[in-house]
This record gives sequence, C-alpha cells and structure tokens, in this order.
Amino acid sequence: MEGIGNAPAEERRRRLAIEGPTNPMVTPLLTDHYQYTMAYAYWKAGKHNERAVFDLFFRRNPFGGEYTVFAGLEECIRFIANYKLTEKEISFIRDNLPGKCEEGFLDYLRKVDCSDVEVYSVPEGSVVFPGVPLLRVEGPITVVQLLETTLVNLVNYASLVATNAARHRFVAGKSKILLEFGLRRSQGPDGGISASKYCYIGGFDATSNVMAGKLFGIPLRGTHSHAFVSSFLSPDEIIDKSLQSSDGSTTWEDFVSLVQNWSNKIQRSSLFSGNHGETNQSELAAFTSYALAFPHNFLALVDTYDVLRSGIPNFCAVALALSDLGYKAVGIRLDSGDLAYLSYEARKFFHAIEKEFKVPGFGRMSITASNDLNEETLDHLNKQGHEVDAFGIGTYLVTCYAQAALGCVFKLVEINNQPRIKLSEDVSKVSIPCKKRCYRLYGKEGYPLVDLMIGENEPPPKVAERILCRHPFNESKRAYVAPKRVEELLKCYWSGNTDKAREELPTLKDIRDRCMKQLEEMRPDHMQRLNPTPYKVSVSAQLYDFIHFLWLNEAPVGELQ
Amino acid sequence: MEGIGNAPAEERRRRLAIEGPTNPMVTPLLTDHYQYTMAYAYWKAGKHNERAVFDLFFRRNPFGGEYTVFAGLEECIRFIANYKLTEKEISFIRDNLPGKCEEGFLDYLRKVDCSDVEVYSVPEGSVVFPGVPLLRVEGPITVVQLLETTLVNLVNYASLVATNAARHRFVAGKSKILLEFGLRRSQGPDGGISASKYCYIGGFDATSNVMAGKLFGIPLRGTHSHAFVSSFLSPDEIIDKSLQSSDGSTTWEDFVSLVQNWSNKIQRSSLFSGNHGETNQSELAAFTSYALAFPHNFLALVDTYDVLRSGIPNFCAVALALSDLGYKAVGIRLDSGDLAYLSYEARKFFHAIEKEFKVPGFGRMSITASNDLNEETLDHLNKQGHEVDAFGIGTYLVTCYAQAALGCVFKLVEINNQPRIKLSEDVSKVSIPCKKRCYRLYGKEGYPLVDLMIGENEPPPKVAERILCRHPFNESKRAYVAPKRVEELLKCYWSGNTDKAREELPTLKDIRDRCMKQLEEMRPDHMQRLNPTPYKVSVSAQLYDFIHFLWLNEAPVGELQ
Repeated sequence: MEGIGNAPAEERRRRLAIEGPTNPMVTPLLTDHYQYTMAYAYWKAGKHNERAVFDLFFRRNPFGGEYTVFAGLEECIRFIANYKLTEKEISFIRDNLPGKCEEGFLDYLRKVDCSDVEVYSVPEGSVVFPGVPLLRVEGPITVVQLLETTLVNLVNYASLVATNAARHRFVAGKSKILLEFGLRRSQGPDGGISASKYCYIGGFDATSNVMAGKLFGIPLRGTHSHAFVSSFLSPDEIIDKSLQSSDGSTTWEDFVSLVQNWSNKIQRSSLFSGNHGETNQSELAAFTSYALAFPHNFLALVDTYDVLRSGIPNFCAVALALSDLGYKAVGIRLDSGDLAYLSYEARKFFHAIEKEFKVPGFGRMSITASNDLNEETLDHLNKQGHEVDAFGIGTYLVTCYAQAALGCVFKLVEINNQPRIKLSEDVSKVSIPCKKRCYRLYGKEGYPLVDLMIGENEPPPKVAERILCRHPFNESKRAYVAPKRVEELLKCYWSGNTDKAREELPTLKDIRDRCMKQLEEMRPDHMQRLNPTPYKVSVSAQLYDFIHFLWLNEAPVGELQ
Repeated sequence: MEGIGNAPAEERRRRLAIEGPTNPMVTPLLTDHYQYTMAYAYWKAGKHNERAVFDLFFRRNPFGGEYTVFAGLEECIRFIANYKLTEKEISFIRDNLPGKCEEGFLDYLRKVDCSDVEVYSVPEGSVVFPGVPLLRVEGPITVVQLLETTLVNLVNYASLVATNAARHRFVAGKSKILLEFGLRRSQGPDGGISASKYCYIGGFDATSNVMAGKLFGIPLRGTHSHAFVSSFLSPDEIIDKSLQSSDGSTTWEDFVSLVQNWSNKIQRSSLFSGNHGETNQSELAAFTSYALAFPHNFLALVDTYDVLRSGIPNFCAVALALSDLGYKAVGIRLDSGDLAYLSYEARKFFHAIEKEFKVPGFGRMSITASNDLNEETLDHLNKQGHEVDAFGIGTYLVTCYAQAALGCVFKLVEINNQPRIKLSEDVSKVSIPCKKRCYRLYGKEGYPLVDLMIGENEPPPKVAERILCRHPFNESKRAYVAPKRVEELLKCYWSGNTDKAREELPTLKDIRDRCMKQLEEMRPDHMQRLNPTPYKVSVSAQLYDFIHFLWLNEAPVGELQ
C-alpha cells in the first residue's frame, strides 16, 4: 500500500521537474490584454471557476497542401507546468486594467496556476488536419483563457514552419542533406531559434544556428562567407604555412606553395583551356587558410568572384594539396547563379580532375547549393536535373514566405458541461461544439482514411465495425468506414494535481522520428504538390445532429420584408 | 582640467549602464556556426585583429513600395555593449568546431568584446533606401563577423514590420486609431514582442500584447473575445447585480433588470422592426457582466451570434442602462462579415437610438473593426466608405504576410584600409566597396532629393554647391544637385573604449516621433501605394570611378571560344 500511496507524491515531484519554456520571455504576460479584462469580468460575475473546455485547431492546411505537421506541444506544457504570476506582474495588470479593480481579484490572481487544468493533445510531430483539435484544454474558464494567446502563439508558428520543412524535405527527396540557414532572416531572435527546432522536426538534418545547437542538440553546419574570401588579399598574408599530414607522420612546411603548385598545374592543364589569366589570388589565399584551420573539413564557398573561372579551380588546387597530405576535402558551396548548370559543370570538373591527376573519389566531391531556395526552386532544380548533394535553405523556409501564418484558433466548446458553439456567417468559421474524443481510422492498405470526432460519452469506434462518418457542415457528404485500425488522437499531457496518468514529453529526436514516420504513412495522393486529395475529417452521426440542433437554437431568426 | 579628465571615466560608466538585449536569448551564440569556424581560420592565419569595415544594408524596399523604415538599432547596441562569451559558451563552441582547435583560440575568445568596435548608424525610425548602409560596423574582423548574424537578425524583421506598420498607417489615415492585435499569430514569442514594439514605431497607437506594454510602455488595448460571450447562458447567472452611478452618489441594485428593460424597449421600438424574436440572451448576459466590471470602459464584441439582429441591439441596451447611471459606453467591435456595410448599419442604429431615446452623443459611439485586415482591405474599405473609427490588425501586419522578409545583408567593404568588393553575375548583388560617408540632400521644397555615398576622405557635400550624383551601377544615370540642406546619415552610436562622442539611445516615443516626422517629409509620389517613384540613391563621381576600377581588377577575364 505504501508504494501506491507514494505514487502521487512521486508524480508531483516529477511534474515539478518540468523545465520552464525555452524562451524566458514566455511568461503569463505574453498574452492579450483582453484575457485579463475578461478574467476580471468573470471574477466579478463569480464565474471564474466554471469548468470550461477549449479546442485549439486550425481551419486550413498551409501552402496549398492537404496536411500539416503539429508542433509546439512541449513548449506549451513547459509554460503550463510553470504558470505562476509574480507580484510585479500582478501590479502591472492592476495598473493597466481599464478601470479600478477590487483587491479580491488580485488575491485571486496570486493563486492562479494550472493545478486544475488538463491538457489533451495530439502527440508532437503528428500529421494533422483542419478542424480536429490539436489541443483540448480543460479547466477553470479564467485560467484557460489566460493561457489562450500563449498556447496559440507557441503552436501556430511551430506547426507552420515544421510543415514548411516537411514540404521542402518531400520535394528534395530523402537522399539529400537539408540545412537550415535562416537565422539572419527570421522574424526576430526567437523566430530563428524556433525555426531551427521545428525545421529539424519537419525533416531537416542540421542548422547554422549555434544557439539552437546548444539548446536542442541539433547538428551544426557551416563553412565560411564571402567576406572571409574577400578579406584576403594574397597568399603572402598567410604566416603559419605548415600542415601536419592526416596520419600525423610528417609535417609539410609550406602548404601554401603546395597549393600554388597544384593551382599552376590545373591552370596549365587542358581542363582550364576556356579561361584566360589566373584565378583570383585573394580567393586562393582564403581557401588555403581555411584548409589550414580545418584540414579534415575543407568546404569552400566558390562564388565570390567567378565560380567556373576562379572558385572551382581554386578549390581543386587546395583539395589536391590536402589529398597529398592524406586529407579528403568535403566539397563546395554554390550561392548564386544557375545552380543546376553550375553543379553540372562542377561535377564535370571534379571528374576530370579525378581522371587527369588520378585521385580516386575526387569526382564525388560534395556540392552544396544555397541562395534563396524554396519548394518551387527545389522542384525546378529537380526537373532540370542537377548534381547538388545538399541544400542550404534560409529566408523562404524560416519566414514561411509562401504563407506566413497558420491561423490556429482557440474556441470554447463547453462550459459547466453545456456545449457551446460560435456562429458565423462564414460556415468555415462555425466551431464544432462539445467536449470531443478524436480518432484516426485506418484502412486495409494501412493508410489513414479519416479523422472522426465524437461526443465525449459516445461509444468509441471499434475495429471492423461500420461507422457512419459525416462532414460536420455538409449534409450530403458522408461515408461508412469499417476501420482496420483505430487510433485515439488526443492523449493526456498535463493532468494538473490529479493522479491521472500523463504522457512523458518525448525527446526532439523522437518527435522528428514520429514526424518522418507519419508523413511516410500517408496515402501519396494527399501529399503530392499539385492538386493533392483532401484528407477527410468527420463527425459521428450523433455529433452531427447535435451541432445542427445547437446552431438553430443559438441563431436568431430573421424576417424578410 | 579635472572636469575634462573625468569625462572618459564618466563616459565609460554610462556605457556600462547600457542594458542587455530585451530578449535574453540574444547572446553571442545566436549566430551562424560559420562565424566561429571563420573566427578560428582568421586566428590561425593571424588575421583576427585586422581592422575591417562592414556595411549592413538591404537591396530592395519591401511590399512593392519605395521606402523602408529603419528599426532595431537599440537592440543592436544593447547586444554590442554587453557582448561577452561565457566559459560554457566557449566550451560549446570548442566542442562543435569541425576539427580540433588550439587552446590559444579559446584564450582569444575569452578576451573578445566590443571595446575595439565602432558602430555608425542611421538613427532608428528613419526612412531609408536600398544600398545605403543602415549600420557601418568597424573593428577587428573576427569580432565584427561574430556580430554579423545577430545584427542582421535584429534589424531585418524590425525594419520590415515597422515599414509594414507605416504602410498600414498611411492607408488608414491619421485620424484612425490603429491597434496591433498580432501576438497569437506572430512567428514565435519574440516575433510577437518585436512586432508590438516596431509596429508602435511605425505608427500604431496601441497593442494587445501585455508583455510589450510592460517592456516598452506601449498603451494596451483589448476588450473580450467570442468565448466570453458564449460562456454565458443567461442573465440569471449574474450574482452581483448592483452598480454605483458614475458620480458615486447612488447605487442601482439591479443593473441586470435595467438592461432587460432597455432591451425590451429597443425590441418593441420601430428600430427593431426587421427582426423576429429576441436577441441572444447569453450575449446580453455577457455584455451586462462586462459592463458591471468596466462601467467606464464598456466596449463589446458584437458578432458572436448575429451583428444586426443580436449584437448591436444587445450592446445598445447595456449602453443605455449605463447612460442612466451617468456612464458613457465606448463602443463596439466588429470581427466578421462585411465591415463597411455593418459599420454603416451600426452607425445608423446608434443615431436612431440617439434620436428615439434622446441620448445626446450616442450616435458617435466608437466602432472598431478587426478580422484579417491588411493594407489592401483597408484601402478597399476606404473606397467603399465606412464608419469605422479604429482598426485592430493582427496576422497580416505582424507576419508581414505580403512579404515575410526584408533581406538585409552585411558586406565587407574594407580591410586594413584596402577597399573590398563582392562581385556577382547579378549586378544588383555587387556590393559598394570602401568605408563611406552618407548624406541626404534636400531640395528647395524641403523634400529629400537623393542619398549620396562618398569615400571617407572625399570632401563632404555643401549646401548650394553643385554635386554630381551618379547611379552606382548605371553609367548613364547621373544628375547635378545643389542641395538646400545636407544631412549626414550615419552617426556614431558605439565607440568602444575610445573617447569619441556617441549618440544617446532615444526613447521609444522619440523614435516613433522621428519616424512619423520623416514619413511626412517625403515627397508624396515616393509614398503612394500605386506606382510610387523610386527615391534616388547615388555615389560621388570619385566613388563611381573607384567601384568600377576595383570591379575590373577583381573579376577574372574570360576567353570566348
């Protein structure tokens, strides 16, 4: 008995161990002002502890696609687990309410935390669809509303950019390396940090963002910039010219001259016949210098002056010199021009070098491309054909340039066990009332067929049982499904001070793996870039009837004149 | 003499008092990985202390316009003033370099700060143009490059969203109140906080973001949400029904009945003749409750069920009851539907109420509109005509949906007093070399005519003196200007440990005032939404010649075959 008795205490201790949000600016003040004015009005009306249920969902998939990757949950839970107003924050709220407030309200705010809140969520990294709750948050109405803006903020961009990353991965194909290079163009410092985290979940391999590497353990990548190249004037600048061989057995005293020799050989060879004069010497100095610093990881940006006439021959001179000492250069990065053409020409040159100078494997040198890449340009490159091995993607990826916002909303669906609906002249904006359970039904091919929402007290769908799935707002759209597999979508991730079991927060790697797996499990026609088939989202017959009963009940009746 | 002798110490003390960045995540690790790999390569080559000059600039105005508002400087200076790597950060860098690094480099990193860096900048809130440096950063090449990504990040989005706000202000007109409501849709938590700050600079009046109110003193605004309305079931829920009159002289015991009476009067009046049945009672209860909490600031969201049949009559019932007790209601917010039409109908109804019930001023009730507004929809509303007094703008404003990135770059223009150029096959990507001085030349009408860049050692342009201004890359574009006024654009905002005078960082209010003033001083044809005239950006004849000399010097010569 003692073991059981200890469990809640243990559970509480474990819960307390949930760290705060990654960004220390995510505090109870990171919310809309009206959450506090409403809090006061609820408190004044004595309604503040009424139990409410809210759904967080979005209405349309982004980027003209038919799927979305859900992300941001971990940060939501970290925020909720540590929710507590400080005395300073409470003073600020008091001073900024539009009118005097009673002391009792401030006492109430002092006690607010999430011990009475429960959060049910789709696991982070899942593929999700419009209208189905990503999070269902239950608790005292005031507390849940105070959370609203922050939760929506944390999920909106996270899911948007993870989806964008997944779409880039889809078009690039599995074999390519995808690098997120967006920090400098992201919408603020946190835009950058979030972008790196959620692009990794969506299928990127690494980031240039050092902070994201430190915070989340995402692999870091990067070489040098144009400024590095143009900061050198000539190879004479290099003072320490010695380089130990790869196996440590010898030291080559003048690596600079070795490079120079190779450069001369290349320029005298037939490979360079289309060119006049020598390559840019400031560039050659920069490459040599970079190789001296990182002989095991020599990767050069080759477009500061001229890719074919200078950058690539210079790179090859340094790579061949490194090869003499037993090192294998990594490759080049192209950051401008016709990437398909330049990658072909580079590859051709590498193969020719391999043949001319008998350096096995030189032709397989890695080619990284960057420069304002996005889904369209990747697709275009694929159609042209190219020799690129890795893509560095920044601006269009992290700012979600093609569609800069997802549009998640947070709607009241029940209060004191009374279902609530939000009407709108625009049917797509009518919310689905009731505390709901949500299921994904899989067909015999193993693909997900439809997501189904049912009222909390309805019997859950069972494998092989025929279930009528109805479009929530279109009377004529309905279908029977006898699922091969049924998966409940919403799991408990926060249970306040109750003893209800809750899911552990997975590691970032696990979230990424889940995302990759879920994307692969989708039926291909939902995923295609052009005219994808919409995935079906439905409600049970009983819930359908109830929605429409409530709608008629709440809407005033007009009189035409 | 003692006074002068003390000055540098005083200056140093003052400098130390510059607070760190608003977002504590803005640290030396918030940068691209390659800044550290380059730092090591510079150090290895013994080049790390070479004095470099970098320009931060953008290449194209955003949103199809011909102007940009510069913002983000204060955060840059806060970052620079406090730049220092911690031991933990240094370990992380060491562990993540692509190869072993020498201990000496780590010792070097331990000493890195910005005491040898100087920053010259256009004042924050200025109107700026493509190609002209916003910041000129000088210092040891390694240190300046370590700053690069962070500075670009801090300026890019700040300037983009400030420009977006200015464009929204331009189309809305000076008399309207503009409210930034974007937090929930912004790109991450900091996206929201930055958006609120920089939209205020660009001409917004207030924000819904409580954190931004606390950090920056921006006025806060907000009322209640749809959830607040639908959380009420009926007026019977309201427990404390009493309300003191505005002058404190009497207490009305049953404000709920007073509202109910007014509601009945309105519904029996000719004003309501187009409607059938009663208004939504849950909505009436919510409005009554909100008025009890904020009788001095009653503003109601009227579209939860039906604006004309329920929301507006319910609002009027509560507003009239408040009026009986000496309070003046603020107005309504419309969040869906045809905002132009609904605002007209609302205004008509308010005027009719004023007349029918003899309540002076009721017709002038404030109307706020929200719901996915942007520059286009504001323009469209203006063309339709409307009765809206205030606009709440979120998603499209803060995510800069029309163009989600500005594209600032940071280019090396000089090292060890040697001018440097970055070439590109795309002429618009060639950088303007040399450490430069920049001037804005004003014409006799008082408008700015042209921005002029000259080499550091050229004589500055003088009032009334004819100056040849040349397009930097188009030979044929040139013009003589005899300016009425000459303004130097770059001022010193950070002078390291030298005794050079530097500008104080202005308050947010001063930055906003500067922005408003500068926008007003522009010639109107640069500012118009449709086909604006490009503002001219030029170089001196001497700088023009030098650019093209350097270009020929650095570019390899091809040989056609």
